[in-house]
Amino acid sequence: MTSLIWSDCSLSTTARLLPFDRMCTCDLRFRQSVSLHSCVKNYSPSFGTQRKHFSSTVTVAMATETHANVIDGKSIAKQIRDEITSEISRMKDAVSVVPGLAVILVGDRKDSATYVRNKKKACDAVGINSFEVNLPDDSTESEVVKSILNFNKDPSVHGILVQLPLPRHMNEENVLNAVSIEKDVDGFHPLNIGRLAMRGREPLFVPCTPKGCIELLHRYGVEIKGKRAVVIGRSNIVGMPAALLLQREDATVSIVHSRTKNPDEITRQADIIISAVGQPNMVRGSWLKPGAVIIDVGINPVEDTKSPRGYRLVGDVCYEEACKIAAAVTPVPGGVGPMTIAMLLSNTLIAAKRAHSL
Amino acid sequence: MTSLIWSDCSLSTTARLLPFDRMCTCDLRFRQSVSLHSCVKNYSPSFGTQRKHFSSTVTVAMATETHANVIDGKSIAKQIRDEITSEISRMKDAVSVVPGLAVILVGDRKDSATYVRNKKKACDAVGINSFEVNLPDDSTESEVVKSILNFNKDPSVHGILVQLPLPRHMNEENVLNAVSIEKDVDGFHPLNIGRLAMRGREPLFVPCTPKGCIELLHRYGVEIKGKRAVVIGRSNIVGMPAALLLQREDATVSIVHSRTKNPDEITRQADIIISAVGQPNMVRGSWLKPGAVIIDVGINPVEDTKSPRGYRLVGDVCYEEACKIAAAVTPVPGGVGPMTIAMLLSNTLIAAKRAHSL
Repeated sequence: MTSLIWSDCSLSTTARLLPFDRMCTCDLRFRQSVSLHSCVKNYSPSFGTQRKHFSSTVTVAMATETHANVIDGKSIAKQIRDEITSEISRMKDAVSVVPGLAVILVGDRKDSATYVRNKKKACDAVGINSFEVNLPDDSTESEVVKSILNFNKDPSVHGILVQLPLPRHMNEENVLNAVSIEKDVDGFHPLNIGRLAMRGREPLFVPCTPKGCIELLHRYGVEIKGKRAVVIGRSNIVGMPAALLLQREDATVSIVHSRTKNPDEITRQADIIISAVGQPNMVRGSWLKPGAVIIDVGINPVEDTKSPRGYRLVGDVCYEEACKIAAAVTPVPGGVGPMTIAMLLSNTLIAAKRAHSL
Repeated sequence: MTSLIWSDCSLSTTARLLPFDRMCTCDLRFRQSVSLHSCVKNYSPSFGTQRKHFSSTVTVAMATETHANVIDGKSIAKQIRDEITSEISRMKDAVSVVPGLAVILVGDRKDSATYVRNKKKACDAVGINSFEVNLPDDSTESEVVKSILNFNKDPSVHGILVQLPLPRHMNEENVLNAVSIEKDVDGFHPLNIGRLAMRGREPLFVPCTPKGCIELLHRYGVEIKGKRAVVIGRSNIVGMPAALLLQREDATVSIVHSRTKNPDEITRQADIIISAVGQPNMVRGSWLKPGAVIIDVGINPVEDTKSPRGYRLVGDVCYEEACKIAAAVTPVPGGVGPMTIAMLLSNTLIAAKRAHSL
């Protein structure tokens, strides 16, 4: 893949994504190029009974016509990790239960190794025991499944995560289906997705990134019920579950994808936008209704000669343009990204509590 | 529930649904009172390779500005049943396999008994063996589950259907979950719904009514890919799976429901509308884009003193108004209704073929 120097949104039609494989979990099939009522009922993070441990340090300015509120995912994620740390500490003291997360890494991809290391660090920081199995790239599918089955049986492991992508000779579906539904903290099992889609059913786990998106909306007091929501991208791990979550909260949801003929027009109707396509700055200011709330899942590396690393990260949404039109927007980095690991920790804690009927 | 005399669409804001419980499978929570490009690429039923047995007797007039094509579900359903009959006959001759469908009826609801009788008749007509268990209204949940488990083990039974609603003292989820996923011809199991929602996954069965809706679109050559589709209603058994099916076929889908503030405005953007809310004539002509294709799942009995039965059936969509605006519309009755049983027979045949690796 060739790469161009990236400077600002005005170059979005010609600039190219750097070849950082799988830096985000977006719907990379999206290949198309394309004004808001405020639905933010309260710009202060919510301190409702369900989030009584939430001790905000986020300062949120009121929206003006020229600058949106920044939804500070980094800060929110830290607060969630603090809440989890406290709860795990109390649980350990009271019933001697320590949540455990097992991660299976197959092969020697550097990016995957980094993600696994970060997850381990995050576990350590909140008091979750982490277990790791590293298998060589030429392992057989059955060897990977065997590791999963061992963790399925291990009562000290409450969550199991298979780091994706797997080597090409493996069937991802077969491997993921081996994870016990009670330990599927990624929430990718079709039984979890089915329950998420159905009224009156409850998934055991909600996939981490979309769960993080909704958590940001909740913590910033964004009203979802009755609002128009557009999800851009329909991947199994972000777009589709994000749409199902918004639907469960009574939003009127449309999913925009690579086959949508007029994505700008549809997106412009949305009070809430969740974008997860992996296309740098694809969503321009002209796609936005004034006052919309934007959750940008895209983490796209683009060449930047001014940066010491030679690149910088941008979202799917042209941040500078969005800031002038939206009521609130997540930055990239520091928006949804930190929430994903926080939600993984949250799911692992939920798994441990459920396993011990706490 | 009081009932008013029903005459035409102009009374829709005051007329009331007659208290015929569960005459349709729509999203009855819809309680709100709220124009189309043609997306019909070909008004002749399709005779593609996948439907080579389809021998059309449907005559379809070209759309005019004043009258939509009628999508003749009754005729299409008959043709599907004929195809199934032929296939079962060939299968019986070749490998001596006869598909079997078991229906479990609990209690003595007249409407449920009628549905079960109709399903039995339909099975007999195409050569499917039908099995029936009738349990008294005061049966325990475990007695119903026991019947299901017996059918799960029985190799001559390929599909199991629990007639809903169950008596109130039973947990519907527990009972339905007892049906083996391989015999869940209703397609209601969350694992099936999850697979339906996920790209790259295949459900074992697709719920009958939404499957029938999509089959009507296919057989009438309605292009789905890239079209705007609106599903009105979000029930587990029609609205949600219908939306997932449209999404799988690359439509851009929005779901309109009881919390949607401007359902008319959103529906007016749709090339394809599937309505399943159980509100007589709720969708007016003003909700429709000229040239839209309308699949009306609603079967709503409304009082009609001129009818010998004292009532007549109408859909969710004001048929007279739709006929003047839409490109094609399903009538009520004779649209989606006959397709549901045809799809149940189709799912039972699929189950038998899968069980015998045919």
